[in-house]
Amino acid sequence: MTNLLQSFTEGRWFTAADEGTPLASAVDGHEVARISATGLDRAGMVEYARTVGVPALAALTFHERAALLKQLGMTLMAGKEEFYEVSRHTGATTRDSAVDIDGGFGTILSYSSKARRELPNDTVYLDGPTEQLGKKGTFLGQHIYTSRRGVAVQINAFNFPVWGFLEKLAPAFIAGVPSIVKPASQTAYLTELVFRRIIESGILPEGSVQLLCGSAGDLLDHLDGQDSVAFTGSAETAARLRAHPQVVTSGLHFTAEADSLNASILGTDVTIEAPEFDLYVKQLVTEMTVKAGQKCTAIRRAFVPEPLVDDVIAAASARLSTITVGDPASDGVRMGALASIEQRDEVLKSLRGLTKSASIVFGDPDHVDVVGADATKGAFLSPILLRADDKTAPEPHDIEAFGPVSTVIGYRDAADAVELAARGKGSLVASLVTKDAELAGEVVRGLAPYHGRVLVLNNEDARESTGHGSPLPVLVHGGPGRAGGGEELGGIRGVLHHMQRTAVQGTPNVLTSVGRRWVTGADRVQGDVHPFRKNLAELVLGDTIVGGPRQVTRADIDHFAEFTGDTFYAHTDPEAAAANPLFGGIVAHGYLVVSLAAGLFVDPAPGPVLANFGVDGLRFLTPVKADDSLTVTLTAKQITPRQSADYGEVRWDAVVTNQNDDPVATYDVLTLVAKAEED
Amino acid sequence: MTNLLQSFTEGRWFTAADEGTPLASAVDGHEVARISATGLDRAGMVEYARTVGVPALAALTFHERAALLKQLGMTLMAGKEEFYEVSRHTGATTRDSAVDIDGGFGTILSYSSKARRELPNDTVYLDGPTEQLGKKGTFLGQHIYTSRRGVAVQINAFNFPVWGFLEKLAPAFIAGVPSIVKPASQTAYLTELVFRRIIESGILPEGSVQLLCGSAGDLLDHLDGQDSVAFTGSAETAARLRAHPQVVTSGLHFTAEADSLNASILGTDVTIEAPEFDLYVKQLVTEMTVKAGQKCTAIRRAFVPEPLVDDVIAAASARLSTITVGDPASDGVRMGALASIEQRDEVLKSLRGLTKSASIVFGDPDHVDVVGADATKGAFLSPILLRADDKTAPEPHDIEAFGPVSTVIGYRDAADAVELAARGKGSLVASLVTKDAELAGEVVRGLAPYHGRVLVLNNEDARESTGHGSPLPVLVHGGPGRAGGGEELGGIRGVLHHMQRTAVQGTPNVLTSVGRRWVTGADRVQGDVHPFRKNLAELVLGDTIVGGPRQVTRADIDHFAEFTGDTFYAHTDPEAAAANPLFGGIVAHGYLVVSLAAGLFVDPAPGPVLANFGVDGLRFLTPVKADDSLTVTLTAKQITPRQSADYGEVRWDAVVTNQNDDPVATYDVLTLVAKAEED
Repeated sequence: MTNLLQSFTEGRWFTAADEGTPLASAVDGHEVARISATGLDRAGMVEYARTVGVPALAALTFHERAALLKQLGMTLMAGKEEFYEVSRHTGATTRDSAVDIDGGFGTILSYSSKARRELPNDTVYLDGPTEQLGKKGTFLGQHIYTSRRGVAVQINAFNFPVWGFLEKLAPAFIAGVPSIVKPASQTAYLTELVFRRIIESGILPEGSVQLLCGSAGDLLDHLDGQDSVAFTGSAETAARLRAHPQVVTSGLHFTAEADSLNASILGTDVTIEAPEFDLYVKQLVTEMTVKAGQKCTAIRRAFVPEPLVDDVIAAASARLSTITVGDPASDGVRMGALASIEQRDEVLKSLRGLTKSASIVFGDPDHVDVVGADATKGAFLSPILLRADDKTAPEPHDIEAFGPVSTVIGYRDAADAVELAARGKGSLVASLVTKDAELAGEVVRGLAPYHGRVLVLNNEDARESTGHGSPLPVLVHGGPGRAGGGEELGGIRGVLHHMQRTAVQGTPNVLTSVGRRWVTGADRVQGDVHPFRKNLAELVLGDTIVGGPRQVTRADIDHFAEFTGDTFYAHTDPEAAAANPLFGGIVAHGYLVVSLAAGLFVDPAPGPVLANFGVDGLRFLTPVKADDSLTVTLTAKQITPRQSADYGEVRWDAVVTNQNDDPVATYDVLTLVAKAEED
Repeated sequence: MTNLLQSFTEGRWFTAADEGTPLASAVDGHEVARISATGLDRAGMVEYARTVGVPALAALTFHERAALLKQLGMTLMAGKEEFYEVSRHTGATTRDSAVDIDGGFGTILSYSSKARRELPNDTVYLDGPTEQLGKKGTFLGQHIYTSRRGVAVQINAFNFPVWGFLEKLAPAFIAGVPSIVKPASQTAYLTELVFRRIIESGILPEGSVQLLCGSAGDLLDHLDGQDSVAFTGSAETAARLRAHPQVVTSGLHFTAEADSLNASILGTDVTIEAPEFDLYVKQLVTEMTVKAGQKCTAIRRAFVPEPLVDDVIAAASARLSTITVGDPASDGVRMGALASIEQRDEVLKSLRGLTKSASIVFGDPDHVDVVGADATKGAFLSPILLRADDKTAPEPHDIEAFGPVSTVIGYRDAADAVELAARGKGSLVASLVTKDAELAGEVVRGLAPYHGRVLVLNNEDARESTGHGSPLPVLVHGGPGRAGGGEELGGIRGVLHHMQRTAVQGTPNVLTSVGRRWVTGADRVQGDVHPFRKNLAELVLGDTIVGGPRQVTRADIDHFAEFTGDTFYAHTDPEAAAANPLFGGIVAHGYLVVSLAAGLFVDPAPGPVLANFGVDGLRFLTPVKADDSLTVTLTAKQITPRQSADYGEVRWDAVVTNQNDDPVATYDVLTLVAKAEED
């Protein structure tokens, strides 16, 4: 028995009881590994995730989880060379492997960074502001997100054995939800190797990740409403899973990313001489050949203004003819093998469907020159460009040939392009190449309902463009309709997909306790010590300083206008100010009000408060007239210690009132405050 | 043939070809109406929604749709008396009808108001800030929401014939998605009447709403990935719909709100003398008897600290014994009939299940005293309170008796209550009665993953509390797991459920054109006219004024400190300021910087700019030292004319830079600007 892949279940490595099924190298057909899950207790995996993984993750804040992910990403990145070696067996070139391996580790690091910057150092995420539900303010609503107390089952596709599992795992981990990773068999040996290094690193908490190499078997039977299944693969399998009795009855969260007939549109403004023409052709060829076109996001339909169809085909064919196919290990090879002979046969079958209404204008399905490998043993295929003269024929809009295959289709105008793209019935991504921002606005608004991502390329952004086919951790990935209707990534959006949104109703004190953010109306604590003299450990929510009153005189307003140069008539011209429908007379500058308020609440001597780094949500509610008296109330609203610094952020609620207790201005003051006593 | 309900399809009223099925009054069994959809072209309804409704709604902005909803809500509210008359046949008391009828119209008005305040006056909603995707800022990402180009099918339950359809219709309408409303047959006569008044009002655009009275038939067969189905009803039907081939394969959006074993928890801090004890019991009895307990949100499980079980049962029984059951039209009747004899039989069947592990402590399933009606003809049932001594017995956590039925269950401590509540496998709502905010924080965080809403009640918020059983338009409604896994309402959240989120990548100019919000890096327009001299119609995105430079002297800083009283050491004490890790010397006040910036960009004379009403997202990025020179660049970022005022909001992008072009402060300035030339 050689190299039988193991699963990692219930905290230990599991070896199947039988010999397993061989997995062949895409390049030369030799056996790379064997795979089997015979004898695996899948119910036990689910139970272990719930009883060990859930509490282990629940004990960590978002920031603590993020710190672990950062450590993990750095560790994996440092040892990436061995993954590149193994990746070649999948048919991937070095460039392909970078997308998968560096892309996967980069996704981990991106999630770590987003979580530290955009989530609180807590386990609950607050969604939106409070909603006042009664006139007196004793009963409010606040939406919160809490982590599901279940497991995230991730069923991945063969084409990205590293990125594919990490882009699902990272957001789940930040959300505090344990993962069961099930790679596609064909390339599971690479997933298993990376997973092995993850376990060896000892960085992730016990129970937070498990690996299932082999058949999913009865795994879904054990899931319920707190669990989720995220599937990437064929529409057929997605439909089968979606009809699974547990998915249908338990309320478990099922998302799919499946077939996608992605479109790339050459704008009607682009001439053959424009740099955008070359950008369009270059991008088309790149998307056809990277990963040998085995990307859910590759361009399947190239929409070109009718008069330019011949020119695009000529230019693309010229470029395609320079693509060397062969063993990724050989010099000069630009496109490797498909993942397996079976995959190549699938593509050839789809091609036969496409040629019902399109003709091949580049490439020979039956022959390709191969460098450094035996063409009869590896899963090699020539890039194939087709042309469909009947733009409404169904095949090019319906059949996804999951390989280096695209179809060029002519179109008339912007509305036509949008309508044709929509015939894909929902796609992961579309791109538009144009330098006309106006046209881009119109076309993007038309494409958006049918797409998870739309990229607009031109000479201005080409150098920085990440490309039609590249999902990014900070942007959503997924598409409506045929593409599966799912959504992943998108920064914190991807984390929230693993959490339950709940509307909480109660008093300000209750909402403060639930959300750990002080809510207007909750208790304020006024002690002997000015809150600016308290470090992060001493400060508590509700700590308050009241400053004032200070009278604002007409002389103050005149002086401020002169000093700052802000001589707006409402501050300087009594007659004109009286005619203003909102003021009815001279008013103090808003900036004067907040400047004076700072003078009322500040504590001058050096202390834990290091700086005021910003102000949020400032609203001027009542005009301040001459001789009004201002009082400011400043209350500690949110306290966020940083994981890796000796200070953190404190958000203060500021309310300025006048002598009638009318609110004049409300805002949040943002400060940096030291964690412990200064030396 | 008497009173056969009609459907409203393809812009006209449709009468079925046959006599239909009779619908009996819940109170006395007389035939109120008949229902049938025989001969209805459901494919035609879907096609009509797509080809007439979608473009009609797409032509309106969020604010324009909101204005129509407001008009509709006011019209319906003005004529509500006739709906109350008809509502009695459903068994509803006046109080029940208010929840349904006023609640429904209130939801319309709430959506109208939210949309005008929280959505732009446009058809695209921007989700979050731009994401910089490259170092130079030529390639950015922006998430947008656009309206799905499909139809929202709404399959409603019998218990809220008015609110039930309006709470689904209002968010879809704001989102620009046409609705097909399918009421439950039993009470469809009330839905049909309200719908008839909607059509007669002529307020809503052609194709935006259709009504299907009778069987859904093959309706779902005609839906695809741009469409959605929102179902409220039994878990059994939800499962059947979820397994429908189109739901499984097309990527259409299916959400359900189904069974829910909602819990209400009496806090361990509450003694029998505390006002919270009475609040708990009163709320329990209210939830049992309003709508005769036929609410998805009613309390099914009453969790009480073990020592208080007897007391709660005694107090609840005493209250229940004062509830008069009978014809809602009769004086003094507090609880009406169930919706039908069939519904009552369903409840009795569920009761037989519950009594396997719980005993009845109040009420007789076989007998109830009825006022003003014939108990043998109407669907009357006594309120039934049960007690389960084995808290882990499955029945009380599994069987939803959809009527005036609750079970009291003892519990030990907070963790126990959370664990027991979770045995409901996901519920719409839970409530907790406590005056201990600390305890509330702990319990709510534990309950949240299993609930769509959690209400905390005590003596402080009781007067304003909207109650355990009341979904509110501004808060999400729905629950995980058994409750269906869906989410509705929640203000704008409910609108976004009908829209597609798309990540758009491109240059700043492209993103400005797509989102109609000026993006940093996009073109700025500096003309001869100061942008403050332009009214809303003249102003365009990118209109810019550059002001400065102005030097900030040490004297300015000293003076500002003295004038405002803000003598923080970083502005006044050179030695202490030098020791500050962020500043390394005296710095100008942030408020001084923004005050001077205003002086540099303001245009003093009266004109279209009426007021600066706020500032958003102010961040101080580089400290300003004495003798630094400040320049401010102010650019029109977002222009929002109000639908019903002669002015609107303009959001300006402000960047203050120093003599080295380092950004010193960035923020948004919010102004009110007149629509047209002033007189």
